[in-house]
Amino acid sequence: MPQSVEKIEAEIIKRITPSPEERKKVETTVKSLLEKVERSIKRYDLNIEPMAVGSIARDTWLPDPDIDIFIAFPLKITLKDMERIGLEIGRDVLEKGERKYAEHPYTHGIVDGFDVDLVPCYKIEKPEQRMTAVDRSPLHQKYVIDHLKEEQKKEVRLLKRFMKGIGVYSAEAKVQGFSGYLTELLVLKYGSFMNVIKSALNWRGGFRIELIPSEKMFEEPLVVIDPIDAQRNVASALSLQNLTTFIHACKEFLKAPRTEFFYPKLPAKLTTQKIAELIKKKGTFFLALVFEAPKVVEDVLYPQLRKCEHSIRTLCIQNGFSVHNSDFEIVGSEAVILFEFEVFELPKVMKHRGPPIWIKNAESFYEKWSADKNAVSKPYVDGEHLVVDILRKWMHVHELVKAHLGELSLGKNINDSIKKRHSILVNEELANEKYADFLSRYLNKKMPWED
Amino acid sequence: MPQSVEKIEAEIIKRITPSPEERKKVETTVKSLLEKVERSIKRYDLNIEPMAVGSIARDTWLPDPDIDIFIAFPLKITLKDMERIGLEIGRDVLEKGERKYAEHPYTHGIVDGFDVDLVPCYKIEKPEQRMTAVDRSPLHQKYVIDHLKEEQKKEVRLLKRFMKGIGVYSAEAKVQGFSGYLTELLVLKYGSFMNVIKSALNWRGGFRIELIPSEKMFEEPLVVIDPIDAQRNVASALSLQNLTTFIHACKEFLKAPRTEFFYPKLPAKLTTQKIAELIKKKGTFFLALVFEAPKVVEDVLYPQLRKCEHSIRTLCIQNGFSVHNSDFEIVGSEAVILFEFEVFELPKVMKHRGPPIWIKNAESFYEKWSADKNAVSKPYVDGEHLVVDILRKWMHVHELVKAHLGELSLGKNINDSIKKRHSILVNEELANEKYADFLSRYLNKKMPWED
Repeated sequence: MPQSVEKIEAEIIKRITPSPEERKKVETTVKSLLEKVERSIKRYDLNIEPMAVGSIARDTWLPDPDIDIFIAFPLKITLKDMERIGLEIGRDVLEKGERKYAEHPYTHGIVDGFDVDLVPCYKIEKPEQRMTAVDRSPLHQKYVIDHLKEEQKKEVRLLKRFMKGIGVYSAEAKVQGFSGYLTELLVLKYGSFMNVIKSALNWRGGFRIELIPSEKMFEEPLVVIDPIDAQRNVASALSLQNLTTFIHACKEFLKAPRTEFFYPKLPAKLTTQKIAELIKKKGTFFLALVFEAPKVVEDVLYPQLRKCEHSIRTLCIQNGFSVHNSDFEIVGSEAVILFEFEVFELPKVMKHRGPPIWIKNAESFYEKWSADKNAVSKPYVDGEHLVVDILRKWMHVHELVKAHLGELSLGKNINDSIKKRHSILVNEELANEKYADFLSRYLNKKMPWED
Repeated sequence: MPQSVEKIEAEIIKRITPSPEERKKVETTVKSLLEKVERSIKRYDLNIEPMAVGSIARDTWLPDPDIDIFIAFPLKITLKDMERIGLEIGRDVLEKGERKYAEHPYTHGIVDGFDVDLVPCYKIEKPEQRMTAVDRSPLHQKYVIDHLKEEQKKEVRLLKRFMKGIGVYSAEAKVQGFSGYLTELLVLKYGSFMNVIKSALNWRGGFRIELIPSEKMFEEPLVVIDPIDAQRNVASALSLQNLTTFIHACKEFLKAPRTEFFYPKLPAKLTTQKIAELIKKKGTFFLALVFEAPKVVEDVLYPQLRKCEHSIRTLCIQNGFSVHNSDFEIVGSEAVILFEFEVFELPKVMKHRGPPIWIKNAESFYEKWSADKNAVSKPYVDGEHLVVDILRKWMHVHELVKAHLGELSLGKNINDSIKKRHSILVNEELANEKYADFLSRYLNKKMPWED
């Protein structure tokens, strides 16, 4: 039921503004971490400085925040030393911490129930000086702290929660959405949560927002020029799908504001019997590739899962099959790449298209196919092309995928994992309790805020 | 087996050059026809002039020629009178002649075994004066007679026979090929048959030949500016398919000259048993629409047959089915429009694509399909579009065509004929002796000069 925007905003703000107790708890943990880092640093006598960064430091965090502590090194220290020392400090401060690798290594641990990252970086003053991907973060931090007004912090929180609700929040590879810094910049640009929502109605693919002037062109779906670096698009991680989801959500929220945009209901879980029934009723062909998910960080895993989905999709389309939808999910320790085909079975004979008749290659096409054992006709003219009817090698998409898995480029770790073991499940074989959550979500296509 | 071009040319010239007896026979018939027309004209006292036009008059005819006699009227006579008197003369000269209508009426008859057309036209001196489609013909005639050298006449005959052999000769609607005048212009432009063949290797879609300069742009596959009218493309009737067939034939003839380019073998006729076998083996789906061919001249009938083929093809493609090939043929008194489908059966559910999310219409799409009884999902975001899964109405192409025949625009006379009676034959129902010639040609895809 639609409510007034003001009432909804007030209700959501209540839910997402940290209570004095939460705030105290976070502050205590951050303070203690900074002290520990300070102590650890002393051993090196190198003018290293720790600092809290991210939403915690900017007071734009949502409940259950991550804590990011950066350890800033002087530029004179080599990258190798910086990484080594950064990890030594990490091991020292986070006893049960584990090394992680994004573009460069950092340490992750859990302290007082919070996810904590200890990230080494270089201390820079201008973006041109940056040596690693994370060096700019303290400059972003300074920009936000200098510009974001006190009363805008709740607007950032609202926007973050809205984006979380519709599934487009976070720049990490798993989500490909809006980063925290991007939400802050949008509030700075448009003034408030509601103004961002209203403004998004004018966005379209390639829309450009310049917080400082920039000449640089970008290809991404949304372009937001970084105010501390005119050469960078802050929205570079955002996928087209997430941009359009956001724009659509903004339209619908304005038409009928509801708390479900911020806190969507989870889709109901279907029984395996119901799943089997739905698959059968649709008449499409379901095929899932299942394998052990490689043990790599999500920022490495998810791009490979997308590559895997894309490669198989392309293989099928190139062979005349058509995909209704595809998706993937990590289910326990397994990765499941799911395809639903509209066309999955084709005749024995297919038309093979050659070059236009006036291209030099047309002649060699004609000669090759005039005497090929797979040709079931002579090459003939079809509009501006030479074509020939040939025997189709793969009449069912299932055979096609089975036969080509070994040759496709699916991402290095995924290729290795598939080589070890994999299975291909089709149609009702997917009606398995293990995959019921994934299939329930997949089969219930809707926008997140809907029932 | 490849032979020398010179030997082949000599052999073909021998077969296509009229013998003194043939020449005598044609001349006698033309002379007697002109005399009859002269006598008939006398009744009107209107300064009307008869003249032989076409290949007979230019001495570029092939054995068994048509005889075209034009009856040229002064410009002061009204179109109505000219048509009336033209037909009166026709009835007078050709006793068993029948009235025909192209753009305007003329009389057709058979005299001494020759097809004769008596065509009224206006006597003009410049193309701008033309009143009817045929008025320019005497000017074309004069241009060719003034420019074509005696030794080039055999070159025109060779080119015509080559084009006949590969099925691209005649500008009439049935063929959509090269007109006689166009072959003459090509020989004038390039000098000889072999030079036309060699030059065609450089042609491509939109190639332009200017016998006089012209600024006018044309969209047709080949553009040959009429030397007596810079505003006209002599090749306007030529289809892309026939242009590419000609270019391909020229390439292959140069590589391996054979008499089969001029006199191809007819494809072997298959038994109905073999036809049924081939259809089954291919695994595609054959569907033929059969109806009584409307009793109209070919120049009216063939564009409608093409329109019919195109409309049904478009209907099927728009509904997700894909066509392997299609074709049509007049078999006795019936027209047969044949389609061979690659995809002919589709799942119950289909994806219906809406506008890009940033288009105003996206909202009404979302509202319509959020509450439509044919929707089996909510509308959802798919890349830049909103889409929705809906129930497919026609799961088999056979049902689709059956259901829509009544509404399609198939050409006026064909629509009428189908309304009266038609049948739809599928797969082995086409293995009928009646259609065996057509199916034999259709199933034996090859270039005409090949075995």
